[in-house]
Amino acid sequence: MAEQHTNVQWGGRFSESTDAFVAAFTASVGFDRRLYKQDIAGSIAHATMLEKVGVLTQQERDAIVKGLHAVQADIEAGRFEWSVALEDVHMNVEKALTDKIGPVGKKLHTGRSRNDQVATDIRLYLRDEIDHLLAEITRLQTGLITLAEQEADTIMPGFTHLQTAQPVTFGHHLLAWNEMLNRDYERLVDCRKRVNILPLGAAALAGTTYPIDRFYTAELLGFDRPTENSLDSVSDRDFAIEFASAASLIMMHLSRMSEELVLWTSAQFNFIELPDRFCTGSSIMPQKKNPDVPELVRGKSGRIFGHLVSLLTLMKSQPLAYNKDNQEDKEPIFDTVDNLGGSLRAFADMVPHIQAKRENMREAAIRGFSTATDLADYLVKKGMAFRDAHEVVGKSVAYGIQSGKDLGQMSLAELQQFSDTIADDVFDVLTLEGSVAARDHFGGTAPNQVRAAVIRASTVIAERG
Amino acid sequence: MAEQHTNVQWGGRFSESTDAFVAAFTASVGFDRRLYKQDIAGSIAHATMLEKVGVLTQQERDAIVKGLHAVQADIEAGRFEWSVALEDVHMNVEKALTDKIGPVGKKLHTGRSRNDQVATDIRLYLRDEIDHLLAEITRLQTGLITLAEQEADTIMPGFTHLQTAQPVTFGHHLLAWNEMLNRDYERLVDCRKRVNILPLGAAALAGTTYPIDRFYTAELLGFDRPTENSLDSVSDRDFAIEFASAASLIMMHLSRMSEELVLWTSAQFNFIELPDRFCTGSSIMPQKKNPDVPELVRGKSGRIFGHLVSLLTLMKSQPLAYNKDNQEDKEPIFDTVDNLGGSLRAFADMVPHIQAKRENMREAAIRGFSTATDLADYLVKKGMAFRDAHEVVGKSVAYGIQSGKDLGQMSLAELQQFSDTIADDVFDVLTLEGSVAARDHFGGTAPNQVRAAVIRASTVIAERG
Amino acid sequence: MAEQHTNVQWGGRFSESTDAFVAAFTASVGFDRRLYKQDIAGSIAHATMLEKVGVLTQQERDAIVKGLHAVQADIEAGRFEWSVALEDVHMNVEKALTDKIGPVGKKLHTGRSRNDQVATDIRLYLRDEIDHLLAEITRLQTGLITLAEQEADTIMPGFTHLQTAQPVTFGHHLLAWNEMLNRDYERLVDCRKRVNILPLGAAALAGTTYPIDRFYTAELLGFDRPTENSLDSVSDRDFAIEFASAASLIMMHLSRMSEELVLWTSAQFNFIELPDRFCTGSSIMPQKKNPDVPELVRGKSGRIFGHLVSLLTLMKSQPLAYNKDNQEDKEPIFDTVDNLGGSLRAFADMVPHIQAKRENMREAAIRGFSTATDLADYLVKKGMAFRDAHEVVGKSVAYGIQSGKDLGQMSLAELQQFSDTIADDVFDVLTLEGSVAARDHFGGTAPNQVRAAVIRASTVIAERG
Amino acid sequence: MAEQHTNVQWGGRFSESTDAFVAAFTASVGFDRRLYKQDIAGSIAHATMLEKVGVLTQQERDAIVKGLHAVQADIEAGRFEWSVALEDVHMNVEKALTDKIGPVGKKLHTGRSRNDQVATDIRLYLRDEIDHLLAEITRLQTGLITLAEQEADTIMPGFTHLQTAQPVTFGHHLLAWNEMLNRDYERLVDCRKRVNILPLGAAALAGTTYPIDRFYTAELLGFDRPTENSLDSVSDRDFAIEFASAASLIMMHLSRMSEELVLWTSAQFNFIELPDRFCTGSSIMPQKKNPDVPELVRGKSGRIFGHLVSLLTLMKSQPLAYNKDNQEDKEPIFDTVDNLGGSLRAFADMVPHIQAKRENMREAAIRGFSTATDLADYLVKKGMAFRDAHEVVGKSVAYGIQSGKDLGQMSLAELQQFSDTIADDVFDVLTLEGSVAARDHFGGTAPNQVRAAVIRASTVIAERG
Repeated sequence: MAEQHTNVQWGGRFSESTDAFVAAFTASVGFDRRLYKQDIAGSIAHATMLEKVGVLTQQERDAIVKGLHAVQADIEAGRFEWSVALEDVHMNVEKALTDKIGPVGKKLHTGRSRNDQVATDIRLYLRDEIDHLLAEITRLQTGLITLAEQEADTIMPGFTHLQTAQPVTFGHHLLAWNEMLNRDYERLVDCRKRVNILPLGAAALAGTTYPIDRFYTAELLGFDRPTENSLDSVSDRDFAIEFASAASLIMMHLSRMSEELVLWTSAQFNFIELPDRFCTGSSIMPQKKNPDVPELVRGKSGRIFGHLVSLLTLMKSQPLAYNKDNQEDKEPIFDTVDNLGGSLRAFADMVPHIQAKRENMREAAIRGFSTATDLADYLVKKGMAFRDAHEVVGKSVAYGIQSGKDLGQMSLAELQQFSDTIADDVFDVLTLEGSVAARDHFGGTAPNQVRAAVIRASTVIAERG
Repeated sequence: MAEQHTNVQWGGRFSESTDAFVAAFTASVGFDRRLYKQDIAGSIAHATMLEKVGVLTQQERDAIVKGLHAVQADIEAGRFEWSVALEDVHMNVEKALTDKIGPVGKKLHTGRSRNDQVATDIRLYLRDEIDHLLAEITRLQTGLITLAEQEADTIMPGFTHLQTAQPVTFGHHLLAWNEMLNRDYERLVDCRKRVNILPLGAAALAGTTYPIDRFYTAELLGFDRPTENSLDSVSDRDFAIEFASAASLIMMHLSRMSEELVLWTSAQFNFIELPDRFCTGSSIMPQKKNPDVPELVRGKSGRIFGHLVSLLTLMKSQPLAYNKDNQEDKEPIFDTVDNLGGSLRAFADMVPHIQAKRENMREAAIRGFSTATDLADYLVKKGMAFRDAHEVVGKSVAYGIQSGKDLGQMSLAELQQFSDTIADDVFDVLTLEGSVAARDHFGGTAPNQVRAAVIRASTVIAERG
Repeated sequence: MAEQHTNVQWGGRFSESTDAFVAAFTASVGFDRRLYKQDIAGSIAHATMLEKVGVLTQQERDAIVKGLHAVQADIEAGRFEWSVALEDVHMNVEKALTDKIGPVGKKLHTGRSRNDQVATDIRLYLRDEIDHLLAEITRLQTGLITLAEQEADTIMPGFTHLQTAQPVTFGHHLLAWNEMLNRDYERLVDCRKRVNILPLGAAALAGTTYPIDRFYTAELLGFDRPTENSLDSVSDRDFAIEFASAASLIMMHLSRMSEELVLWTSAQFNFIELPDRFCTGSSIMPQKKNPDVPELVRGKSGRIFGHLVSLLTLMKSQPLAYNKDNQEDKEPIFDTVDNLGGSLRAFADMVPHIQAKRENMREAAIRGFSTATDLADYLVKKGMAFRDAHEVVGKSVAYGIQSGKDLGQMSLAELQQFSDTIADDVFDVLTLEGSVAARDHFGGTAPNQVRAAVIRASTVIAERG
Repeated sequence: MAEQHTNVQWGGRFSESTDAFVAAFTASVGFDRRLYKQDIAGSIAHATMLEKVGVLTQQERDAIVKGLHAVQADIEAGRFEWSVALEDVHMNVEKALTDKIGPVGKKLHTGRSRNDQVATDIRLYLRDEIDHLLAEITRLQTGLITLAEQEADTIMPGFTHLQTAQPVTFGHHLLAWNEMLNRDYERLVDCRKRVNILPLGAAALAGTTYPIDRFYTAELLGFDRPTENSLDSVSDRDFAIEFASAASLIMMHLSRMSEELVLWTSAQFNFIELPDRFCTGSSIMPQKKNPDVPELVRGKSGRIFGHLVSLLTLMKSQPLAYNKDNQEDKEPIFDTVDNLGGSLRAFADMVPHIQAKRENMREAAIRGFSTATDLADYLVKKGMAFRDAHEVVGKSVAYGIQSGKDLGQMSLAELQQFSDTIADDVFDVLTLEGSVAARDHFGGTAPNQVRAAVIRASTVIAERG
């Protein structure tokens, strides 16, 4: 891609034609034809600008625009023959245009080069895809928030180190996922600011001798402004890397949610049920119902991290300005968009249908000594030093492990073995409901805090406009 | 780090003490003691909040604050003995506090856990380091812009594919670097927004039963707001990953500048001179003057990319909430801060002292047929089709390679061999000055555009406040 | 490191001394002093070779060797003052030698340069560390195999997709881990072949004018042979990358074992018990016993992957021969050695003490319809098409989920609802013992196969010599 | 891929059919159909083994083999319709087989599962591709060695820090590349050992109840042996990671060669000429001849590093045995094979046609004070201490920079300004020929050493058989 052409187009400097394998190895049309829509939109804006500044007549501009529309129609109808000899989407489109409208088609390339053209195409593409991804994130969050509201009172064990720690509500847990996605949304919005800038007009690297109006082209294409420096414009691939970084974080978050979904659907946890339509069975083992979607999404996180590494490595140590290396930016971007989009879609479809097995969650919370901290707090409030309270509770737990009883299942007499400070009122704090309700501050797991958080989260979504 | 303690502190649940190697292997004080200042600042704010909500008396709060100041003084005077048995910075500081002020010191830990405490410390640390890095970027940019202004008229070859492409000005080239750094600055500012949020109050994972005021603590520590969700607060490491991403992009940019500095100081390019104080010699080869700083910075880019990968991998598939894995977040952050900071400092010191060898640059621009595009444009303006013009110039270049003459060195008769459209006025466009001056639009390389860009760039810097 | 020196040593070419920050930023002694032992061993061999070829007298050689031993004694006694001004371990040692034995010390550097010296040191270091790591792998495997033998009959659920699939034995599962480690061992042995080659004699890059005998030096240091090409010798860092790759695979395997250990110690799985001395508790939650070691090791996998990425990035696109970038190879190697070694040690210590909770494993295997495949096989053997058998079993499982009964818990009448082919003898195949015993071929989970595999695995270990 | 099927095949456990998007999102046939040849070869071997052990009759086996050949013919003739509903290559082939030969086709799946089947296919594929890649490496090396022999006497500047260091021969430089490729070859051979092991027979995860003979199947398919453990067999993806590591190192080496080719074809170095057929021009700049192949290969290094990261991340923390995540192993492997193979092919085609511009190389070597070390050695041999000699040469070089003369261009009187030890015979050591010839030891740059190295290198190639 970018500035080189087939021999036919290079004129007299070369004494032999390109090696056939080299031509195929270096061509980009196999993947960059995906940018045809952006390429044509960019060309229409460019032609319109050239007319405005007097380089094209209105007639010429109109012929070009009409011709480009016809080319687009051909492509979308499957009538277009892509040629590897023409190397890339740009030359394929330009050749088809000239075939349709004659020599005036060649005037389209005035004042630009493939170096700034491809940078424009990919930014247009990425901007649109970011908008789509933002919408999918919002859809997923909407499902999460709705579910969180339904499960605001559902008690499950909260884990640290995958060991039962303290009871939390399932709604609170789901809102933790929502927070991850809020940051992801913000990061994509920040990334979009740096994507939505017009490089066209940088030409090959130094600008052009034609009196172009880059602000006008930017306006026509919905870019916020033109880029500041022509050398930077044709060599900058920061937007791709920043996008891959944001995508990696989203996939990391989805991998965390996936891990929990896989755990929760195991026979051992058995906290939720996923609808059959999001799972698959086994041809060998008739009892199997596999959580394929979260597993596959978890696996795909590595793929996106890999693309981030590819792009960073690609740009490491490249001198200015455009180098052929840069052609390698597109496939990682495309694959990131596809897999991130697919993963978000699958999650946004599936999440609203997660069915909590509330009894199982509750039972797990009871069994894991999850109110041990509450017992310690109880003793502290009765005047015991926390260090001593911790010791008392530790011994009670050790007894519980041996006797197979959770704290709330022991008799008062059993509990009093470890401290006679313990009285009848201890059973209030040993309930799961008492435990979660007591964590009643901004960000805490108390059901009324979860409901307030649901309202705030809904407002954030609503204000995205 | 985080929630686990030495046996002495865990009470009755355990039947044997920790294996000595395991204790050393899992302790974090070897590296997290670097956070002592943030840990103490966080504790002072926490104690102040606890007083406000009535959990501590004023006297208790004052004793704690005074004690913490004394601990900090000990650390900074080198009088503090760090203990691996106490595992982490938090327990080391708390123990020293209690040694100084007695049992009231233990009240400091009310309503918090090490899980939210460490998350607070690292965010405070990172916020301050980002501010420092922003200042270093600005310092480097200031040097670049000043140099760009001085070199606004200096002509050098612009390269694509490391082949001479078209003449550009050295000032324009330096401003391309400045654009990279502008994006870096913006990204760090965006990252800072997501760093500067208070997790304290999440306690171990679910919040606390004490009536804490997290907005007040946030205000005391200069955070924008408290986090929304306790489970997310103790497990979120996005800020570290986002910072490592931003750092990777900066290092990638510095590696690109480095590559060019190394090229330019080679005997083959010989475009610039770096002051002796930024270079080193060889004990073996007396003639050597090596560009160590850019080489080392280029090498360090890999190091930072590696940390980004470490952190993404670290968080992949972790279930909520805090897991011991998370302890591995700190060393990559510290090392990124150190090496990024050092690289920026070295560049900010060095760049203003780059000496352009203007004659060498100019000569290189003349020799590489860099005005070939201008000759083609000349022919087009005389009415020739661009395709034909390209052919004429290609043949002229082929002749030039054989005869050892650049285009501007050929006689009119020689040029007219390839087209009789060429006339006496051709020599105006074949000058380097004519070529750069003609690229006279926003973002182009014309010296007056470069000067205008310098003014805009200076304004951006000035408005950072 | 490598070829540059402080100004004092560079002679007349430089007109100003090194910037103080640059000196500190570019010095390597802060980390490469760790190589002092290898540096001294390499110097002794070099001096011995120089004597053999007549460049040094025996007296000179003996003085140097004695002096180097004295320097080593100083370092090991903590009496050595490392100087940043002397840049690296090589110059620090050489200076100390010369201080001790006078000008003859300077003759040591004849026919070598720091470029080949550092490459020699790091290879010596890595070779020794690989030997240590190999021993640790063997120790871990020995523990695994012993445990596998003990648990050859212990039945647990085998999982795919973390869903109960078919019963396996715990011994079989442990031997799967052993297979991973077998490959790791082989890979390290293969890597060692490419580490254990002597670069000394390449000098700065081109070789030396002295009549050195590189085969003799190689022999003295236990290297298999000298390197073939001087340019390659000083720039090659493949050994570091290959080592980091092998280390990444080992850490990936340990992360998989860790994941399972974390799962198995959760309240939900509850398959094993880890001794208290390998776990930690919580200062807040008295009931907690956290599997810190596997969690931390799992987290450290990212760290090692990151070093691999650092090193690959470091070497990308470096022209020959030595560049300052290469100095960045050492810290990732050191950190990889430390963390991999620590992780293996912790595992080798801990694994033999894993206590299987056999009843819990067995119960989990019973509950998950794990013998469904066996029921299908039973029907096929009675003449039913597999497709029909699968259908029958699927319906039986659906019934089991509703009625809360596993297949083996249903009455004959219940089972016959789904097919009257089912007869009394079905209960033999529905037992866990019957199921595992039937998988009786090389590599299968039948207890006698596991015992045979234990013997083969022990033989592999024994033959390592 | 692997064990799940479309609903039609799962029987009675499921109550609704798969969501359409989920079906497409989780299907693998879009990429794994590439394995059809290996899948069919594996099935033929499996059927043959089943006959040997009495599970199939000879007639059944023959019908299956004939049917599979017919399916393969259909695929290769483009007559095969791949179905996403059938999920993967395995079910597509099996369905087509059954359509052709009737119900006996279903017997083929006896005693295996898709979990072990896919692992077998990918290993067969990778083994064959490794053999192809080994042949391409050998072809590239052969070209390098031939060129090195031709250029054994050609003198060029050797660089460290991209600064002229000492003269070397171009042949010696090319052999440094050959050394990199030797290691690459060895690493692929080592990797192949661990690829070429048969997992078939592991079935879903635990082995099968049929009396299979895995050694026989291994023999039929040319595998060295069957795998040791069924759980490991279906979950192991080490071979993919190890292959990606080896591929990353090769690409890193090609990126280093590429960097030098790009430098050497620049106007500033101008050391070599690449044939026009391996380069491309510019549609805009008629003078351009761009080294596209090395640039693109350099860029592709990042792509392969990225795949390595993907695969490591993929496997991080996966519990045994097969998980759906593993489906993500194939695309990175395929893309690595394609891009590595293409890069090696392009290099193997191009390298023999590199034309050295010997005069330019020589002139560059003369100009950079490359014999400064030789002057120092000369003085040492006259009895001066090396430290003093270094100082004398440093001052001579400083004088040379000011006066624009290289050392060999100064008069005796000029040289004697710095030391009267210098005599007439100095000019012998200041010649380039004298300098390179003096480095006359194993691995040194002296032309006769280069010729000896060529012979050794050729022998290595010849012995590959």
